[in-house]
Amino acid sequence: MIRDFKWSEREKKIARRAYDRAYEKECAGILNEVKQMMEGTKDPRDIWKVEDYLDKKRMETNAKYDYRYSVLILVFGKLMQDGLIEEKDLSGLDQDKIERIKAIGSDPRLR
Amino acid sequence: MIRDFKWSEREKKIARRAYDRAYEKECAGILNEVKQMMEGTKDPRDIWKVEDYLDKKRMETNAKYDYRYSVLILVFGKLMQDGLIEEKDLSGLDQDKIERIKAIGSDPRLR
Repeated sequence: MIRDFKWSEREKKIARRAYDRAYEKECAGILNEVKQMMEGTKDPRDIWKVEDYLDKKRMETNAKYDYRYSVLILVFGKLMQDGLIEEKDLSGLDQDKIERIKAIGSDPRLR
Repeated sequence: MIRDFKWSEREKKIARRAYDRAYEKECAGILNEVKQMMEGTKDPRDIWKVEDYLDKKRMETNAKYDYRYSVLILVFGKLMQDGLIEEKDLSGLDQDKIERIKAIGSDPRLR
């Protein structure tokens, strides 16, 4: 079972770095979207569209980013689907973990 | 009592225009603040500070803008305090309404 994988100290460091980088990329994407929304409007009242968008993104992001080791393979698989984690970011993890992440990352049912 | 003031059709039009303009200025101020927050940061994760700020402003703005005629004198007085309505915007209202709005607008206890 995915949730029974053991993580060595070295793997935990690699996972944490990949996770943090993905999160930063996620936030950068949201920030750029907000910039575009703000550049594309002439009506100041559209600021509430930005607020609606950010509220939605906060909820989605909170649901998506979960660093419990019991779910991390699944989280990484989804981040790979979204292009926020690449195989090279996982270099140093056990090969069986990498394979599971890639399998989830390419599973069309999870799109 | 302020809430017992009668509003003629002509006054309603003037009031609506002043109210809408103040609201647009309010939103423009919030939009500019968000732009500055976003220009002043290098960490994409600060996008959540923008969300916190906008959530707070939405609540404040919802509480501040209330177009019921029973409270409009008070609302206009506060908007005058905030520099979002000027005496000239009220031109055409009954003089007693204008005086009450100005009195509220300059009342230090309401700051």
